[in-house]
Amino acid sequence: MAAGPGAAGAARVSSGRDLSCVPEVAGALGAVARQGFDFLCLPLFHPRHRREFAAPPARDRPGPQTRSDLVLAGRDWNTLIVGKLSPWIRPDSPLEHVRKNSQKALRQELDFGAYLGLAAHLVPLRGRHNPNLARGLSAHLHSGHHATQFWVQVPLVPPEDSRDDVIGNEAPPPPGGGDEENTWEWWHNFRTLLDYNKRVALALELGPDLPSPAALARWLGEPVRAAFLPTRLFLTNKKGFPVLARGHQRLLGQLLKLDVQIIVQGAPRHGGRPLAAYLQYLEHLGQHRPPPSAYELYARGYEDYLQSPLQPLMDNLESQTYEVFEKDPIKYCQYQQAIFKCLQDRVPEGERETNVQVVMVLGAGRGPLVSAALRAARQAGTRVRLYAVEKNPNAVVTLENCQWEEWGSQVSVVSRDMRGWAAPELADLVVSELLGSFGDNELSPECLDGARGCLKEDGVSIPQSYTSFLAPVSSSKLYNEVRGCREHDRHPEAQFETPYVVRLHNFHQVAPPLPCFSFQHPNPDPCPDNSRYTELSWRVQVGTVLHGFAGYFETRLYGDVTLSIRPETHSPGLFSWFPIFFPIKQPVPVRAGQEVSAAFWRVATPSKVWYEWAVTAPACSALHNPTGRSYTIGL
Amino acid sequence: MAAGPGAAGAARVSSGRDLSCVPEVAGALGAVARQGFDFLCLPLFHPRHRREFAAPPARDRPGPQTRSDLVLAGRDWNTLIVGKLSPWIRPDSPLEHVRKNSQKALRQELDFGAYLGLAAHLVPLRGRHNPNLARGLSAHLHSGHHATQFWVQVPLVPPEDSRDDVIGNEAPPPPGGGDEENTWEWWHNFRTLLDYNKRVALALELGPDLPSPAALARWLGEPVRAAFLPTRLFLTNKKGFPVLARGHQRLLGQLLKLDVQIIVQGAPRHGGRPLAAYLQYLEHLGQHRPPPSAYELYARGYEDYLQSPLQPLMDNLESQTYEVFEKDPIKYCQYQQAIFKCLQDRVPEGERETNVQVVMVLGAGRGPLVSAALRAARQAGTRVRLYAVEKNPNAVVTLENCQWEEWGSQVSVVSRDMRGWAAPELADLVVSELLGSFGDNELSPECLDGARGCLKEDGVSIPQSYTSFLAPVSSSKLYNEVRGCREHDRHPEAQFETPYVVRLHNFHQVAPPLPCFSFQHPNPDPCPDNSRYTELSWRVQVGTVLHGFAGYFETRLYGDVTLSIRPETHSPGLFSWFPIFFPIKQPVPVRAGQEVSAAFWRVATPSKVWYEWAVTAPACSALHNPTGRSYTIGL
Repeated sequence: MAAGPGAAGAARVSSGRDLSCVPEVAGALGAVARQGFDFLCLPLFHPRHRREFAAPPARDRPGPQTRSDLVLAGRDWNTLIVGKLSPWIRPDSPLEHVRKNSQKALRQELDFGAYLGLAAHLVPLRGRHNPNLARGLSAHLHSGHHATQFWVQVPLVPPEDSRDDVIGNEAPPPPGGGDEENTWEWWHNFRTLLDYNKRVALALELGPDLPSPAALARWLGEPVRAAFLPTRLFLTNKKGFPVLARGHQRLLGQLLKLDVQIIVQGAPRHGGRPLAAYLQYLEHLGQHRPPPSAYELYARGYEDYLQSPLQPLMDNLESQTYEVFEKDPIKYCQYQQAIFKCLQDRVPEGERETNVQVVMVLGAGRGPLVSAALRAARQAGTRVRLYAVEKNPNAVVTLENCQWEEWGSQVSVVSRDMRGWAAPELADLVVSELLGSFGDNELSPECLDGARGCLKEDGVSIPQSYTSFLAPVSSSKLYNEVRGCREHDRHPEAQFETPYVVRLHNFHQVAPPLPCFSFQHPNPDPCPDNSRYTELSWRVQVGTVLHGFAGYFETRLYGDVTLSIRPETHSPGLFSWFPIFFPIKQPVPVRAGQEVSAAFWRVATPSKVWYEWAVTAPACSALHNPTGRSYTIGL
Repeated sequence: MAAGPGAAGAARVSSGRDLSCVPEVAGALGAVARQGFDFLCLPLFHPRHRREFAAPPARDRPGPQTRSDLVLAGRDWNTLIVGKLSPWIRPDSPLEHVRKNSQKALRQELDFGAYLGLAAHLVPLRGRHNPNLARGLSAHLHSGHHATQFWVQVPLVPPEDSRDDVIGNEAPPPPGGGDEENTWEWWHNFRTLLDYNKRVALALELGPDLPSPAALARWLGEPVRAAFLPTRLFLTNKKGFPVLARGHQRLLGQLLKLDVQIIVQGAPRHGGRPLAAYLQYLEHLGQHRPPPSAYELYARGYEDYLQSPLQPLMDNLESQTYEVFEKDPIKYCQYQQAIFKCLQDRVPEGERETNVQVVMVLGAGRGPLVSAALRAARQAGTRVRLYAVEKNPNAVVTLENCQWEEWGSQVSVVSRDMRGWAAPELADLVVSELLGSFGDNELSPECLDGARGCLKEDGVSIPQSYTSFLAPVSSSKLYNEVRGCREHDRHPEAQFETPYVVRLHNFHQVAPPLPCFSFQHPNPDPCPDNSRYTELSWRVQVGTVLHGFAGYFETRLYGDVTLSIRPETHSPGLFSWFPIFFPIKQPVPVRAGQEVSAAFWRVATPSKVWYEWAVTAPACSALHNPTGRSYTIGL
């Protein structure tokens, strides 16, 4: 669905250089730029500036505490430098004097980074327990008006020494990646203390060992901005060049999809080859990623961008909205194929000259299904009489012009809502495209039920049926985006009680989608009831935190002709629908092996329809959107 | 003050062509583009589509009601076409059937324009009385989610026939432009009914007569987006080319400063010269405007952009903020000159080798005043001992590095707040740069009073004094910008109780600034009282509507060395300060010849300072910011 930000997506890999000692900044920056790096990570304070804030004589030592900001132009500090904290800072030390001294140094260094206007500042986590570091950073984030981002350094796998702390020499790690959960939980605890602050992101430290694919996938829902890549991780290829093992290559591919910046750490160690050799290899990896699919290209710039679902019943669509959807390369081919098969089935070979099939396009828009039906009839060699029913008076102008100039008398344009229309005859076939990202969420069931008086006893509806699907999702990005949709004239949590259409990107699907609500047309029930209730349960492999549910749909147009946006069965090239996302108010922690359950309701009244939802396991959430207070779909 | 949007300012004149009958859109658009126009204004509905919505037979006539949207690509409708309403639409007709029919046509045409996704739609005002047209447009603006702008066509001078309506043949027009007020009031009433909606802008219709300069200036506070320029307004120069009279040239220059787009109306009528000749003349006018001043260049992109005033006492400034202000080409020259003159006055010719003047820079930042003082001392041939006092520990790092590498032992760096500092000796001269856009609004009085114990009995302060100034302002742009600053966690009108630093651009200064608050240093009062109260009155020439007050300041650094941002005395090239703007909650209408009065308070407590203000004539407003509930400046 259109309307939103510009195109994104950068083919080039952005890279930085990590240095632990920089006696002369301008020179080091120049050297690093000549090697091909985009930025430089350096300590803001020299080790000689280590001081006892709490005690003399260091406290009272005169002279500048670090180098002057004048050594670089302001713009260079703002764009080319990433700051590093002094390595001796330990705000969570059990020793009070170390803790107090570290608190003061932390504050001084963060303040100085803000003064310099750094784009980013690195904050390392060295263990599981960081509440006092979090408080120091939180205090800084809530003071002043700076814009520096904080990149929290977290090792992908716990370093040997801290692993010893946890596991000791006893039992093997619990199944499902209990061992590997460690450092993700360091991060999860830290960012939870910081209330998911948008300026706090991740810098993953890659090591020789990689966790399981499931444990890796979990990071893909996190705001990873950078990854540290030590030169010692590189193997040597036959020609003596540094290269990565296949597992590391795969991981880097996943990270580059999230536009992660790579920070090269350590001295060059491949037979005298310069650092540029490592950068060339990264560039090579970046360029040899699989090219984006047509769908990915189409969706570029919409990644994780929340859109309100269309309300085509209440609002009249605009010309350009029709124009965008008419460009789908798959959808109308599938419709034509479905109509073709249906006409073939209904008209015996011998009757093709005499039998005139009555086809009604319900919600004709600017006419793409009318054209598809005419093509299908020509293809099947059958005769049709067509009605194009449309309630949007603006689109009717287009239909009437097409009828006048192109379609001729075999098509009648009807400027009416299908639900109130007294058709002059009954239809063999009604064709509609009323589905939303969650199938029924644009009220296709209600519309088609409202028009079922138009259909012959043995008439056919295209589509014949559709089913929605749901999957639990972890994504701090989406959680934060939803949180940002707060509006002052609504209920303060209304933004969490509304589904969004969104191209899911920086997210982790915790378990595969399950079917949710199904509808058939013509509705076999003489008194149609389109309300629904279901409870779904998923088994979760790795410990994670739940932020909501991704919704998809599949539809059977006719026979074996289908359309799907469920990832497992997605129609290749179809781009008319992004997934839907149902958020939840409070992130729900889930342990490996636990079951996640959720209840979903579709509530239908004569004037409107809405969804309510709740998590029911491993712990109950509040029921979302009671009485449709925050979101309804108007009939 | 830095931080904000990118650079603006377009040298090229954007132009459109107005056509009243377009049988074939794509062809007309192509022709107009070849003539050099950027967009085309055309009626969306053909006169043949005029219909009686209320009565048959026109109501029931079959067939399309206008041309199809398919005649142009969506992007062309979105960017190149400006829609015109059918000229027979009269929603404010006294005849009920005309009114009802017009209402329905208005709705249909606005809806169709939204369906096409037009960038802009023209809405003409044909007289003073337009409430039903306003309601029709308001209903449209509040439905759906389109983005079309509405350009309200208003004649600059009332057309002959409607002027007759108002004046008749009786009395001459009232003094002060009572006649000319007419059409500005059409607009003011209309946009007031539409609650200053941001999507409603102005398209001025220029005619042969121009109103008085004061009446013209009044339009410069309005959101003028376009101006209609009929070819019949052009004179013929010696070579036969179309040119404008001097008054029209001047007006066009003023409009182009607001980036107004020019719409050329009527057939070419200059000896067979093509329309391109008129465009060439406009281009010529555009290129021969006076070049922007250094100040205008510096301010580019900040026009009418609201910024919160700095709070350098509560917040520590960033490196780049210092960097920007240090670049001012005028400020430090004036300071150097002031210090030079002061040193000359204080040290008799014969004592220059022996007399060491003690100079304290209070709030030294990164040291520009220290350098200015050292240069001044060299220039005067006197000896000085300098103290650089600064409370921002980050800037102290810069000072200490400068002291170490450049200034040497004649400068002592003091990392303290000047108010709490026990100086080791008394100063001959204290130098500070603590002024804000409104003079005292960064609490220079409190800071310097707090440090006056440092000064010798006969010591001098640079600056010696400063005065703020205020002028009443009309600007629907600023009114709307302030309104948009509403935040959900504040008092719902807090945005109107806060002053803003802003480069005033789309505004009309209703009367010249008057002096408001003055301060002297050293403060002659033994018990300084920095609270102030004053009431100011201005006589207004033309009827207008008041949206707030522009604030400026002047300062006497030493003797006749001054700095000023008051427009009448602005120091050439000085760019460190934009004006300040005090908004008011409700626009106050003012008639020509009336007096505008306003009361301003400066309230000072031991922990903070704030302003309160109110309009007291021609009618009282609410008192703004009581008890400093929405805005204070922390000490």
